[in-house]
Amino acid sequence: MAVSSPTGVPELSRNETWSLTALAAVCLSALVRTFERREGEPLIASLALSGIAFCAAYAMIRWLGPTFVRAGLSGRDKSKVNNKELLPECMGAICAVVYLFIIMVFILIPFYKDIVVATSGGGNRDVVMNVDYVQKGRLLHRFPHGKLASFLSAIIALHSITILGFGDDLFDIRWRHKFFIPAFASIPLLVVYFVDFGVTSIVLPTFLQKITGRELFDLGPLYYIYMAALCIFSPNSINILAGINGIEVSQSIVIALLLVANDALYLLTPYPHPATDSHLFSLYFLLPFLGVSFALLAHNWYPARVFVGDTYCYFAGMVFAVVSILGHFSKTLVLLLLPQGFNFLYSTPQLFGLLPCPRHRLPHFNARTGLLEPSVAVFEKDRQPRAPVAYALRLLARLRLLRLKESEDGLIEETSNLTILNLWLVWRGPLREDRLAIEITIMQSLVGILGLLVRHKLALLVFREDNLSTRSAF
Amino acid sequence: MAVSSPTGVPELSRNETWSLTALAAVCLSALVRTFERREGEPLIASLALSGIAFCAAYAMIRWLGPTFVRAGLSGRDKSKVNNKELLPECMGAICAVVYLFIIMVFILIPFYKDIVVATSGGGNRDVVMNVDYVQKGRLLHRFPHGKLASFLSAIIALHSITILGFGDDLFDIRWRHKFFIPAFASIPLLVVYFVDFGVTSIVLPTFLQKITGRELFDLGPLYYIYMAALCIFSPNSINILAGINGIEVSQSIVIALLLVANDALYLLTPYPHPATDSHLFSLYFLLPFLGVSFALLAHNWYPARVFVGDTYCYFAGMVFAVVSILGHFSKTLVLLLLPQGFNFLYSTPQLFGLLPCPRHRLPHFNARTGLLEPSVAVFEKDRQPRAPVAYALRLLARLRLLRLKESEDGLIEETSNLTILNLWLVWRGPLREDRLAIEITIMQSLVGILGLLVRHKLALLVFREDNLSTRSAF
Repeated sequence: MAVSSPTGVPELSRNETWSLTALAAVCLSALVRTFERREGEPLIASLALSGIAFCAAYAMIRWLGPTFVRAGLSGRDKSKVNNKELLPECMGAICAVVYLFIIMVFILIPFYKDIVVATSGGGNRDVVMNVDYVQKGRLLHRFPHGKLASFLSAIIALHSITILGFGDDLFDIRWRHKFFIPAFASIPLLVVYFVDFGVTSIVLPTFLQKITGRELFDLGPLYYIYMAALCIFSPNSINILAGINGIEVSQSIVIALLLVANDALYLLTPYPHPATDSHLFSLYFLLPFLGVSFALLAHNWYPARVFVGDTYCYFAGMVFAVVSILGHFSKTLVLLLLPQGFNFLYSTPQLFGLLPCPRHRLPHFNARTGLLEPSVAVFEKDRQPRAPVAYALRLLARLRLLRLKESEDGLIEETSNLTILNLWLVWRGPLREDRLAIEITIMQSLVGILGLLVRHKLALLVFREDNLSTRSAF
Repeated sequence: MAVSSPTGVPELSRNETWSLTALAAVCLSALVRTFERREGEPLIASLALSGIAFCAAYAMIRWLGPTFVRAGLSGRDKSKVNNKELLPECMGAICAVVYLFIIMVFILIPFYKDIVVATSGGGNRDVVMNVDYVQKGRLLHRFPHGKLASFLSAIIALHSITILGFGDDLFDIRWRHKFFIPAFASIPLLVVYFVDFGVTSIVLPTFLQKITGRELFDLGPLYYIYMAALCIFSPNSINILAGINGIEVSQSIVIALLLVANDALYLLTPYPHPATDSHLFSLYFLLPFLGVSFALLAHNWYPARVFVGDTYCYFAGMVFAVVSILGHFSKTLVLLLLPQGFNFLYSTPQLFGLLPCPRHRLPHFNARTGLLEPSVAVFEKDRQPRAPVAYALRLLARLRLLRLKESEDGLIEETSNLTILNLWLVWRGPLREDRLAIEITIMQSLVGILGLLVRHKLALLVFREDNLSTRSAF
């Protein structure tokens, strides 16, 4: 508990304080102006609130960092020469809390117009109220309660994942247990999806339509299992592509930006596109997420002054799952998570115990060169892999999909750990930590852009229509 | 961090394990049966889930207690002779998490009938779906989305208070700051109240009706300030009536039981009473709360094996605020919080710095007698209170509302700390810790019962009608 003041995070400089104050002031005035015009203009308000979220998260990471260290939430950076300093851990919790309160304030705005219409517009305020009214309340028939329920259930899912992620950071839950944590958090989401939307059909590809003679295929309950699986996969997949400064946040920012770009495509179509509302909904949740994430990245980028914690990874993954499920573009999210999916599949031999799995698999820091190298899992002489596993390892090594070290008498001594970060180092040779983070982030961006192109261009070849445009002329 | 195994909470005995398993099995079968009958029967389901909540919280307090201690969430019991043992702190967080998941599962049940009606009942499932349907989803016009929004906003408020309360336990937020924590958590609640119900009028007492010529008085925005104030007051007032084993939980259980009794009154009236739904809503939230609270009390009662933490106090207070606001009986809650209100008012001279306020104001444990005595705040000789304060102190002392110790030369040396627990000890003399908790709990119950009687009997004298019955004959 007795930690002296230098805890990694410096106090806000005067310059930073002024910049943040100025940015927050600009955002606040933009926000107030959207109210003045009485139109809501939720998108501008969302942008303004995202700016405020950035400022709040940035300042609070500085203010509360030392408090976290004092409470024992701290760690040392293993990939630095001078790693005596205790850095605050679990700063993602701050981002999550800032985000949740910004979103709760935001709720008012997209419904502002509806409230005005339903109350003063309808003249309800002026009629004489009787006791019956007092007991039953107003009945806003025109109010989009369903939309409100979507918002609220999304917030609940994010609240749940924050609590569970924070519990994980504090209590170090075992891997096997925590894998399913997001499933609990997805319950309210699936309930609202069930109640509100209930579509469990998928559009069949054209060639299957010809064979089966139907356009849609109803997955029924399987669709809910698919959605729950996505809620489990998305947070966990981000959580296991981790371990070097900035990588958790930068990959999340890339995914969020690509989702925002995808959403923006729908806003450019003539207004009454059926999916416009879904994509606005998605933007409302992604923009503040970008706000708090950039604030976190500024502190977590190489050389990191703070760590993000599992809370951030879970939270980011759940934001993506929430917007893609309630926004009805879960397949797009799957495309954007391809690198994470590869990392997960690639990791399975270690995760499921086929190969030895050390406690940490982050790249090995070579203090002499200052560069990262692939870390390794060691095979004891008397614990050699079975024949098929050994064969597979040698095959993968020949395909340059891992690095294998064999003794002269043909025993397997060690293999590089099966994570995409180590694999990248196998391919590219030793890299400095920030270089590795940049390259992985660029790779993630390219794969994502390609994925979106495939989704929007090639979809028309396989399906008769795309959400964005159709081949037929209606 | 190096804590050996005896951490206060013993493992579950075989007897306990069997009892809990049996209870959980009975509850589960009751729950399944409510589904089989296809009517929902939400109240029975809620009771069953409350039983399950009790079992889950009871077992998890045992299982996770040592984990909390290892994570540094622990404390020593200052009011025991042998207080070397580290007891787990903040077990209210476990209760809150169990509660929230039980409630999220529960959501399905009251809406089960509506979902069945809206889907297969309406035959929507059988019609051929087109792509437009896939993009827009089903439109459940008959589904009570407003009701769902109430549930969801209540859950969000409770989620928020859990996160904030837990943050307080971890980071020891300053009193001035944390006082307003519940205000943030109340935002979603007020938004939904605004959107959904919007009644900001109060019924005027009959004599005022004659004077003003109107039945209702519209408080307008003031009504929202009143509700936010209730959300701040209720959690904080429970948090400051604390400090001896069991008192936080027992007072919360008393309030919850009285609210349940009040709700039950409305269920006994012929069905279509306008307030029945509100009171069912309240029961759905109170019953699982009682479940987790009894599980906590079993471990927190004298001699305590665990501590509840601020999380529990905040959480309990917020549960009451949520049900009373969304159930539209916030005035009843105010009546039930009278002892807490008195404790708060009585404390203000110390809280606001008129009198010296030591870090802890819990009763003083006399290790020789094993009894609790009033703890004191000491006045330094050169820091005597000003004349009016000294006068007030002497007046209160004469009214037996505090114990004052004066030196021979007329200087005030010390005063008993201004909490209801110390006052009770001033009145009743030294008491054993459990005796004090029992007496305060009985006092709380009597005041509460009296409050409810006043509310239902006397209301008819002051108002023309009561929620429960009316003097006029309609």
